[in-house]
Amino acid sequence: MTTEPKRKPSRTARPASPHETKNDTNGQDAAPGRLSRRRLLTTAGTAGAVGLAAGAPAGALAHSAATGDDGPALTALGSTAVPFHGTHQPGITTPAQAHAHLAAFDLAPGAGRREAAALLRRWSGLAAELMAGGTPEADTGVARDAGPASLSVTIGLGHGFFDATGLTGARPAALDPLPAFSADVLDEGRSNGHLWLQIGADDALVAFHALRALHRAAGETATLRWQMTGFNRTPGATARPMTTRNLMGQVDGTNNPAPGDEDFERHVFVPEGGDPAWMAGGSYVVFRRIRMLLDAWEARPLAEQERVMGRRKSDGAPLTGERETDPVDLAAVGPDGRGVIAANAHVRVTAPETNGGATMLRRSFSYHDGFRDDGAPDAGLLFLCWQADPLRAFVPVQRKLDRGDALSEFVRHEASGLFAVPGGAREGEYVGQALVEGY
Amino acid sequence: MTTEPKRKPSRTARPASPHETKNDTNGQDAAPGRLSRRRLLTTAGTAGAVGLAAGAPAGALAHSAATGDDGPALTALGSTAVPFHGTHQPGITTPAQAHAHLAAFDLAPGAGRREAAALLRRWSGLAAELMAGGTPEADTGVARDAGPASLSVTIGLGHGFFDATGLTGARPAALDPLPAFSADVLDEGRSNGHLWLQIGADDALVAFHALRALHRAAGETATLRWQMTGFNRTPGATARPMTTRNLMGQVDGTNNPAPGDEDFERHVFVPEGGDPAWMAGGSYVVFRRIRMLLDAWEARPLAEQERVMGRRKSDGAPLTGERETDPVDLAAVGPDGRGVIAANAHVRVTAPETNGGATMLRRSFSYHDGFRDDGAPDAGLLFLCWQADPLRAFVPVQRKLDRGDALSEFVRHEASGLFAVPGGAREGEYVGQALVEGY
Repeated sequence: MTTEPKRKPSRTARPASPHETKNDTNGQDAAPGRLSRRRLLTTAGTAGAVGLAAGAPAGALAHSAATGDDGPALTALGSTAVPFHGTHQPGITTPAQAHAHLAAFDLAPGAGRREAAALLRRWSGLAAELMAGGTPEADTGVARDAGPASLSVTIGLGHGFFDATGLTGARPAALDPLPAFSADVLDEGRSNGHLWLQIGADDALVAFHALRALHRAAGETATLRWQMTGFNRTPGATARPMTTRNLMGQVDGTNNPAPGDEDFERHVFVPEGGDPAWMAGGSYVVFRRIRMLLDAWEARPLAEQERVMGRRKSDGAPLTGERETDPVDLAAVGPDGRGVIAANAHVRVTAPETNGGATMLRRSFSYHDGFRDDGAPDAGLLFLCWQADPLRAFVPVQRKLDRGDALSEFVRHEASGLFAVPGGAREGEYVGQALVEGY
Repeated sequence: MTTEPKRKPSRTARPASPHETKNDTNGQDAAPGRLSRRRLLTTAGTAGAVGLAAGAPAGALAHSAATGDDGPALTALGSTAVPFHGTHQPGITTPAQAHAHLAAFDLAPGAGRREAAALLRRWSGLAAELMAGGTPEADTGVARDAGPASLSVTIGLGHGFFDATGLTGARPAALDPLPAFSADVLDEGRSNGHLWLQIGADDALVAFHALRALHRAAGETATLRWQMTGFNRTPGATARPMTTRNLMGQVDGTNNPAPGDEDFERHVFVPEGGDPAWMAGGSYVVFRRIRMLLDAWEARPLAEQERVMGRRKSDGAPLTGERETDPVDLAAVGPDGRGVIAANAHVRVTAPETNGGATMLRRSFSYHDGFRDDGAPDAGLLFLCWQADPLRAFVPVQRKLDRGDALSEFVRHEASGLFAVPGGAREGEYVGQALVEGY
């Protein structure tokens, strides 16, 4: 910020990376330090249109001569583009990125259906452009030089959106407010909202840039209600298969359903011809800001932590098994004659056998917002789960957890949200169009 | 957090990376999902002891079978270890990582020189272990499975440390409080402190884990005074050579001095035989939390932003040149007969010609802590600069900026710190030992 005392180029920037993007086909004419943002847009746009699979590398990103001894290298981390258009919105089955912003907005007084439609159109256009690596007009420049870095933007609608826009009749019953849970200490100012954005990217500046651009695009139509920032492992930081860890140190994400699983679509997405019709291809997301009482948790011995979870901390294997993916044997009895998995172990309370098969796709981010006045870390999980029907997935499971989960002692639910996330937009269309233009 | 409804392994985790660590020599016996933390420790420790160059890849990290179709791959991003021991502490010439925590602590009442020495010993031992990828006893487990991800821990001592430990006579004159600048609106609660930690890593969980471990290790000896979190580009997100961008979208870091430059050591580090003797190999860091008034900044047209900086936004080139690294021509006159670089342009006010060669190494991180009550983003720069003598580097330049920098209108200095960062510890020694045991 302050001083530019010398003329020598800095070598305090990133060292050369020992790996390179393999499909380095478009780099031939990129001059050093002049990575073309336009070429990036073209390339990524094509990849987005061709490969509908989320997370497909956007081929072909330009190694400049900077990939030499001193400069940084653009890798798949930076060059991967997620397509905006498709049957479903991005950010649901897209692999969870290293950085995320969640932001909720309320429509301004006087902004109705027409203004909301214009905003959804602006946001969709901007999201598509940013996700393809483009630079919008009047841009802040923060993401310039970077690849799209798996940026995804997901747009949701809250309960209040429908009254504010005169679309109350089109509101899905699934958006009825969540029941109160006894352990909730919810901050309404950081809960709910008319509109919701989930932004994910593997680069923090790319994510910030998108948040800022989308916020600015809200203009006079909607004001920011709350915003939170989360994170996950950076790609390349681990070779651990499949799952991540949360801030309690637990393996998280085991036994998440996955695209391709039998019934995955049915559990996660509203089908064509579902109710309401405008939600075809859409999903409902439940958000919970879950603070972890890390001081209390970390004070417990490992064996007790494992009893609380019903899983080993080291590798996530159930206490009745050897590997993370082994099925949990709820009937197993130990040498002392007691159940190996305690009656109130988290893994038992949430087990499919005990929840009538309730299935949701968890896709959460950790958060850490410094320290509270009481000295405890303000840290935990921005829990996000996706389902076709929250009343058959999140709600019954959470009710059960609320009654008797050993983990409850160590967490506090501090904010909550429930949003309808419409299906993906086709080229030339925008998210929510079937709702705001169809009713 | 909540539910484990199915038994199928998730495929919503990271996709396979198309690049692999090239020097994959130690991976032969790592079983899938069982990446040995101990082997990692060994490997990284060796690399640290052998290669003293900061940021050297820690050779040889284990691709498990998970590097196949579905699993994530450990790349240089994760496997790189920075050595803790050496002439200088890490985190100064180490390339700036994607994530950082700054934390200041005050010694508890009753904690004196002896307790401070024990804490410096504990912190040094822990830092060395964590930076090598090790897992300390009674660990939280958050970093388990991850490589060291270029973790660095840097330890500093503030003005108040010396009185609290009865070492007032050993306090360097360079730690005298910074002069007040007219534009400062400093929050003392987020400024200064007896002890200071800078933690950097390319993975957010690794950085959080280190912060938590070091915080716990403070025990009863020191209490947290303030903590802030920052970020930079993720390695691989860009091929832009050498510099990064800040949240104003400006290229930042141009013309930073670099190790190997003539006089680099002299400008940045206290020499052997310097004053005081215990600071040999050490450096002084000035920290400023600089909030950016992004709403005001972004409302200005590009041409005005470029006049304020004296550089082009697109590529950082001076308005008198073609490339980022071109020297700034302060004498250049435009067709209108006026100087091309305005009298109050940031690049002119900070130019070496106008500051008697004042040289400091800038190594900053952006920050974004959500939004303020007034609706503005609480975002900007955790400015950090390193020098052998702040009175000949930061102070005169900042005084000049304070008087007439066009950029001042768009920034606010909200917190400040000045810390003595002792030289690096040798194997078996700890940071600050020459001070706390030598006087």
